[in-house]
Amino acid sequence: MNTKFRPLHDRIVVKRLEQDQKSIGGIIIPDTAKEKPIQGEVLAVGKGAINEDGKVRPLEVKAGDRVLFAKYAGTEVKLDGEEFLIMRESDVMGIID
Amino acid sequence: MNTKFRPLHDRIVVKRLEQDQKSIGGIIIPDTAKEKPIQGEVLAVGKGAINEDGKVRPLEVKAGDRVLFAKYAGTEVKLDGEEFLIMRESDVMGIID
Amino acid sequence: MNTKFRPLHDRIVVKRLEQDQKSIGGIIIPDTAKEKPIQGEVLAVGKGAINEDGKVRPLEVKAGDRVLFAKYAGTEVKLDGEEFLIMRESDVMGIID
Amino acid sequence: MNTKFRPLHDRIVVKRLEQDQKSIGGIIIPDTAKEKPIQGEVLAVGKGAINEDGKVRPLEVKAGDRVLFAKYAGTEVKLDGEEFLIMRESDVMGIID
Amino acid sequence: MNTKFRPLHDRIVVKRLEQDQKSIGGIIIPDTAKEKPIQGEVLAVGKGAINEDGKVRPLEVKAGDRVLFAKYAGTEVKLDGEEFLIMRESDVMGIID
Amino acid sequence: MNTKFRPLHDRIVVKRLEQDQKSIGGIIIPDTAKEKPIQGEVLAVGKGAINEDGKVRPLEVKAGDRVLFAKYAGTEVKLDGEEFLIMRESDVMGIID
Amino acid sequence: MNTKFRPLHDRIVVKRLEQDQKSIGGIIIPDTAKEKPIQGEVLAVGKGAINEDGKVRPLEVKAGDRVLFAKYAGTEVKLDGEEFLIMRESDVMGIID
Repeated sequence: MNTKFRPLHDRIVVKRLEQDQKSIGGIIIPDTAKEKPIQGEVLAVGKGAINEDGKVRPLEVKAGDRVLFAKYAGTEVKLDGEEFLIMRESDVMGIID
Repeated sequence: MNTKFRPLHDRIVVKRLEQDQKSIGGIIIPDTAKEKPIQGEVLAVGKGAINEDGKVRPLEVKAGDRVLFAKYAGTEVKLDGEEFLIMRESDVMGIID
Repeated sequence: MNTKFRPLHDRIVVKRLEQDQKSIGGIIIPDTAKEKPIQGEVLAVGKGAINEDGKVRPLEVKAGDRVLFAKYAGTEVKLDGEEFLIMRESDVMGIID
Repeated sequence: MNTKFRPLHDRIVVKRLEQDQKSIGGIIIPDTAKEKPIQGEVLAVGKGAINEDGKVRPLEVKAGDRVLFAKYAGTEVKLDGEEFLIMRESDVMGIID
Repeated sequence: MNTKFRPLHDRIVVKRLEQDQKSIGGIIIPDTAKEKPIQGEVLAVGKGAINEDGKVRPLEVKAGDRVLFAKYAGTEVKLDGEEFLIMRESDVMGIID
Repeated sequence: MNTKFRPLHDRIVVKRLEQDQKSIGGIIIPDTAKEKPIQGEVLAVGKGAINEDGKVRPLEVKAGDRVLFAKYAGTEVKLDGEEFLIMRESDVMGIID
Repeated sequence: MNTKFRPLHDRIVVKRLEQDQKSIGGIIIPDTAKEKPIQGEVLAVGKGAINEDGKVRPLEVKAGDRVLFAKYAGTEVKLDGEEFLIMRESDVMGIID
């Protein structure tokens, strides 16, 4: 991603990992699961979520993290010819170390 | 925009960038995406979002920013013959540097 | 408006500006817009919005302001033979200077 | 209203003003308005609205006020042979001086 | 009610007053009203409503009060052969002195 | 219940009292009631409800209490061959002394 | 679970216990129950739930706990060939000691 894109607030940019890459992290998503989780790499994160009192809470997820998220989470955008996902941190189920 | 328009609270005025201008920022929105994001330039921003305790939180987005937002976000208005969008900052997915 | 009317809390009284007056502020609303915004002049405002903790937040809009609002916002009332709109400040998109 | 009735919290008792009395306050409600406002006189008010933190916020409306409210607001009750409305202060659009 | 019953939090126990008893308080409910209010006597009240911060706000209604409430408010239970209503204080419209 | 089960937060474990046991507490539920309340004995309670600020509010209900609750409240589980109900304290209408 | 997976915030990873293992904890779920609870072992937990003010509340459930949860709670994922569930702590009804 050559173009610099700063996600706003609690949004993050994720590069979806392809089918054949699933075996790297060791997670295989069964076809029968209602919500199909998918993994990807976090490329950029917002400054943080806005609490009800207006304060900013930094995100737990950071660029470089490999994350697991629900299949239909986020919005797909094309950036410099590649597809990315913009989602909220709350769509992320966890981090794969 | 010669007419001065001050958006209220967390609203912003955005000049939508045309199809052929999309290549400038490098973002191409696939037709198959459920929510089609679009980019534009921020012309004016409100004083800030009102928190639950009534305090004002200044917006992160400022005039001049190139932003990415969901296609159906905001309300279209014509101002001095040109079309603009009035949306809330929360409709903005991120800033393109 | 000879009759004195004090809107409650975050409500405001607006005198809708007629079609031919639209060119004054320079804003023309396209017929195809989903939510058709309209402009008007604010005649009276309430003491303020009630925050969750019960404190009053004075409104940003004041009597005399020319405002842009969604077409179906508010409730129409007749006062001394003229029609007015009573709406909440949150229905106002911005102020035209 | 000879019977003493104390509305609870943010509720108020209103005596609806009849059609022919509408000209007194100068407000005429057009038949075509979606929400038809009506005016009335406030006879009694509760101690106040309960905020989220449990504190009581005294009402802005007081007994004797002539108020404008939405036509279908509140619940009708008969008291000593006359009909009254019990509504919440938030159903009141404003006070006619 | 010989059996001791302590309503939880903001709940109260009400003994519904019969049709012919309506004339005592002077309130007659018109059949045409959408929500038909009814009156009754409060027999027991909970310790108080729980605020969002977990603090307890004592109820304004107390045992012995004659109250007006919406007809379909609460849950009917039989206690020692008599029917009672268990409702929340927020279902009470006001107190008849 | 020989197996130790600790309900989480504001949940409680209740042993439903059979039809013929209803006369003990003196409460009979009419068949015509919309929401049919039922009574039972509390066997275990959670540490408390979580307030919005994350603090724990201890429950008012405790093990040993005989409680009245709505018929369809909670989830039924079998424990050591007997059926129990797991519900939230907010499903409990009151305590029978 | 050889792959390290850190659930985010209030999420937990649970290894579902098979049908024949149900007798271990002594809990049998009746087929007729509307929401069928199931038990499992907690393998990993997030740092805590985010309160409204943005502070983190550590979870009550910890790795190693045997928990009871609703049958359709969470999302199923395969990790190193085994199936796991990722759910929120609020989906857990209680802990079996």
